[in-house]
Amino acid sequence: MVGRPRATGESAGERDSRQDLLDAAAELFVERGYAATSTRAVAERAGLRQASLYHYFAGKEDILAVLLEGTVLPSLRMAGALREQEGSAAAKLWALCRFDLELLCAGEHNLGALYLLPEVSAPRFAEFRAERVELKESYRALVAQLVETDVDTSADLLFGLVEGVILTRREKSIPDVAAFAEAGADAGVRVVGRADADLTVIRAEGRRLSGF
Amino acid sequence: MVGRPRATGESAGERDSRQDLLDAAAELFVERGYAATSTRAVAERAGLRQASLYHYFAGKEDILAVLLEGTVLPSLRMAGALREQEGSAAAKLWALCRFDLELLCAGEHNLGALYLLPEVSAPRFAEFRAERVELKESYRALVAQLVETDVDTSADLLFGLVEGVILTRREKSIPDVAAFAEAGADAGVRVVGRADADLTVIRAEGRRLSGF
Repeated sequence: MVGRPRATGESAGERDSRQDLLDAAAELFVERGYAATSTRAVAERAGLRQASLYHYFAGKEDILAVLLEGTVLPSLRMAGALREQEGSAAAKLWALCRFDLELLCAGEHNLGALYLLPEVSAPRFAEFRAERVELKESYRALVAQLVETDVDTSADLLFGLVEGVILTRREKSIPDVAAFAEAGADAGVRVVGRADADLTVIRAEGRRLSGF
Repeated sequence: MVGRPRATGESAGERDSRQDLLDAAAELFVERGYAATSTRAVAERAGLRQASLYHYFAGKEDILAVLLEGTVLPSLRMAGALREQEGSAAAKLWALCRFDLELLCAGEHNLGALYLLPEVSAPRFAEFRAERVELKESYRALVAQLVETDVDTSADLLFGLVEGVILTRREKSIPDVAAFAEAGADAGVRVVGRADADLTVIRAEGRRLSGF
């Protein structure tokens, strides 16, 4: 399949081509490395001409930015939706951890591995970095309602526990993502001191809160 | 300071040059990227000639392997030392988490960020990868004594919590590493279901066990 730039509004075929390019870039960036991957290689892997790629993206940085934002924005939206609901902070934290873990486990390629690229310090990624900071701030706001002291340290550890799955995926695939995400959410509320005896109630409320 | 290859045994100056090269490489690999860094750039940053670098290392992969092993081997030795001592599994796990977190926070450059490089799949890094698997196995063996079900998931989450500090360091420095490592060790034993009421005893035993 060889696509080519079109002047009209985005068709279904164009959405497919754009997604094909994102999928191809995800594979190459994670498996071969970002620096080692050219836009030509991305286009070829997607079965498109290099010129077509520039119809959809300004360049390699632009593709990486879209991929990175996709690993953060859905969780940020979930954090906002949880904030507007009535419910306990522990259950909201459980629901956010579960959702975020599922997102980081989603997709064939471990996109979170790209967080550590030195290139992500560049200006083009300011929006991604800001969104990630905002997501962490959402965790911190919930943690602040659950621990008395050292809120920052607890928030760092909790965020590390969730994003730690990126390092886990580096070496193995997660066979049952839903079960892993729930176990990770359990671990998350344990980190902020919830007792095992409270977990059944927290889980039930957390599942209800995230089911809107 | 410009060094040069010497034919004799390793002198104090040679140890310094070797360490200077490792420090320079750590900085460049983490800040600029592994693929983007040449052995010439490493030698120049260390104030040495490129030929001198090849006196100490077979090449860039060799330097990276030494740096990576330094982030795992000390924790692996600690795990072995803990195994030979009398003590509770919870206290040993606490001590291992604390030690490992301090190691991953040590040094000016966040070497753990290099774990996610695609290049680390190459044969030269088989030893590093095996040592990391062995370290994780040490965690798993302790976790197996502390949880009834889902040992693998708990071990994955716990290892992710500890290595998650690599992602934390990507965005901020840890002001008080000792306090952070103890808080992380507390979180680690919470993840495997230890209650807050038991933490004081676990911490005291953990500190004693790691003080040999």
